[in-house]
Amino acid sequence: MVSTAEAMEVIRRGADEILLEDALIKKLAKGKPLKIKAGFDPTAPDLHLGHTVLINKLRQFQDLGHEVLFLIGDFTAMIGDPTGKSATRPPLSREEILENAKTYEHQVFKILDPEKTSVLFNSSWLGGMSAADMIQLAAKHTVARMLERDDFSKRYKSGQSISVHEFLYPLVQGYDSVAMKADVELGGTDQKFNLLVGRQLQEAYGQEPQVALTMPILEGLDGVQKMSKSLNNYIGITDKPDNMFGKLMSISDEIMWRYFELLSFAPMSDIKKMKADVDSGANPRDAKIRLCMEIVERFHSREAAVSANENFIARFRRGAIPDDIPEVILSSDGNGLPIANLLKDAKLVSSTSEAMRMIKQGAVKINGERVEDKSLICATGSREVFQVGKRRFARILVN
Amino acid sequence: MVSTAEAMEVIRRGADEILLEDALIKKLAKGKPLKIKAGFDPTAPDLHLGHTVLINKLRQFQDLGHEVLFLIGDFTAMIGDPTGKSATRPPLSREEILENAKTYEHQVFKILDPEKTSVLFNSSWLGGMSAADMIQLAAKHTVARMLERDDFSKRYKSGQSISVHEFLYPLVQGYDSVAMKADVELGGTDQKFNLLVGRQLQEAYGQEPQVALTMPILEGLDGVQKMSKSLNNYIGITDKPDNMFGKLMSISDEIMWRYFELLSFAPMSDIKKMKADVDSGANPRDAKIRLCMEIVERFHSREAAVSANENFIARFRRGAIPDDIPEVILSSDGNGLPIANLLKDAKLVSSTSEAMRMIKQGAVKINGERVEDKSLICATGSREVFQVGKRRFARILVN
Repeated sequence: MVSTAEAMEVIRRGADEILLEDALIKKLAKGKPLKIKAGFDPTAPDLHLGHTVLINKLRQFQDLGHEVLFLIGDFTAMIGDPTGKSATRPPLSREEILENAKTYEHQVFKILDPEKTSVLFNSSWLGGMSAADMIQLAAKHTVARMLERDDFSKRYKSGQSISVHEFLYPLVQGYDSVAMKADVELGGTDQKFNLLVGRQLQEAYGQEPQVALTMPILEGLDGVQKMSKSLNNYIGITDKPDNMFGKLMSISDEIMWRYFELLSFAPMSDIKKMKADVDSGANPRDAKIRLCMEIVERFHSREAAVSANENFIARFRRGAIPDDIPEVILSSDGNGLPIANLLKDAKLVSSTSEAMRMIKQGAVKINGERVEDKSLICATGSREVFQVGKRRFARILVN
Repeated sequence: MVSTAEAMEVIRRGADEILLEDALIKKLAKGKPLKIKAGFDPTAPDLHLGHTVLINKLRQFQDLGHEVLFLIGDFTAMIGDPTGKSATRPPLSREEILENAKTYEHQVFKILDPEKTSVLFNSSWLGGMSAADMIQLAAKHTVARMLERDDFSKRYKSGQSISVHEFLYPLVQGYDSVAMKADVELGGTDQKFNLLVGRQLQEAYGQEPQVALTMPILEGLDGVQKMSKSLNNYIGITDKPDNMFGKLMSISDEIMWRYFELLSFAPMSDIKKMKADVDSGANPRDAKIRLCMEIVERFHSREAAVSANENFIARFRRGAIPDDIPEVILSSDGNGLPIANLLKDAKLVSSTSEAMRMIKQGAVKINGERVEDKSLICATGSREVFQVGKRRFARILVN
């Protein structure tokens, strides 16, 4: 068992806010396993590295001896969008939710310890709740405090409509903490308000209030915008090893240290030492490879990581891809780009007909692999090294 | 059957607002019995004339051939005050509610036609409602529109707290209209917002929206403040005939015409004629007696009314109480006033010892009846004619 101080150091790593630290220290000092709650939306079980920031923190709690309550918020998902405004939020059936839950488990158990994880569905306690119970719950919070929530406040002030039921969702989520008797709840920084509602409701129901711990949003491969599927700057945790390795190798050296803090399980002391070495002249590529190896190993295997590393190096050697390649960002309206247009837009060729000719001659390569298909569409979100002939290189991000 | 125009004249009598008149005309023109909804709080079944303003309007609808849905709002009463702030609003049990409902029926069937009245309890449809249904209901209204309600708007602006569940009550009440398929809902002017929520929800649930009809608040015996028990300026509908008659005779001539409009079932043409007669010199007392007779007969019997009238006249004759008596208002801090202090404060005697002496001599009368008890406490809210000796009179309102 580690000391409370050591535990706090692990917990603080990368965290945005802990409300309240003192309360957490008290809870830890009891020396008993704490219930660590995190809620997940059952509509989107396709996780990327951005989602794992929070799951990694859960894992750290498990390594400290605590129990993770992995909550699938199926109750509201089964309601869908009751305003009927959003065609994209149809209610989910019981079967769809169970299927999504399985997908979740399959993915998160690459990080979490199944022995210390309980997967819960909030429909188990909310499904049997009556309208009268809901009224009683709603009596425990005020309109003014709801309107303090950032997004509500902005929408109210700008005259954008807020449906009354939107005030009930934070209460429902907070009530989950009551039902689960959570000691700590984790969420993104955008969840801070809701986590605090949980604290307040637990107090109202006579429980010791939970500690709210928020984790930051991870930046995407571009290092600027948040990692998200719609921005196509993400690494999915089911991505193939070579793809995962290659994408991760493409991040900037700066964002690499942030990824280390939030995605790696290497001790912070190791990471600090690596950074100091790089600052005094060591090649950052070695650190980056270490990160890539760890991540690929986590989601695939040690062998897959070794082989992805070898493939990556081989591609570079074979293609003699220089270290210093110009970066080009092309816009595709989400439909991808035909390779000929891409090569022309990136100024690697002067015309699409030159592009076609070069492909036919076998002079076009992607990450060192020869392109055979003249009608290849380069997917939106892809970010690969294109080579024409011996000397023309570009790393092209298709947006 | 009367024409729609004639019906509208009856319906408009005394009404504060009809939203929308055109819609009501359309509904009436169908020639079918309409469902007329009015909601009542099951916590206070002790009705006074102020409450009957609305019930009289229901009766007028019945006389026009329509069906009254007398709704007892037991669902929220069974919840009580979920904030726990009000010690005076404990939840009511099923038994208490049924008992209160019987008391209601006993009282309102002195006005309403039981054949055309259905007594309903909203717990029948709300009791089985789930939290999920409540969320769906809450999605049909916006926070901004709720905050437009007068009392919410004032409280929000002045920083007084509004609990989230208070936003659910108008929705619950509005949903009653959906469940009942109401054509018209009646309420006090303070209920206008809620009646309109009912309209809106019926539309949202694909029904023809109800017409909202608001009735004004009746002034109390003082002719200024609203009739209410706490102000002690009321006539309870279970008051004894003599008491009812005497209190009603004490109202000013001005407020009498308002009482005629809102409390009498005499045709407006008769009332207008009486008023014209009084304006040209007829004694208003005759009109007032007619009103008293009608009201006492309604809540007791024709015989009781005749006898109350005779008793009243006899008291006046015996006491030779003059027509023109000065009015005095005394303050009692709600505890009533001992008769000796009251007589002194009203300047009918010069000291409390003179008051005691006069009572001993049998020279003090209340409404012509000799006072025997020197320690009599005159109740807060009483308004009687006091007489000392032959010539000293005052009508004293104890506030």
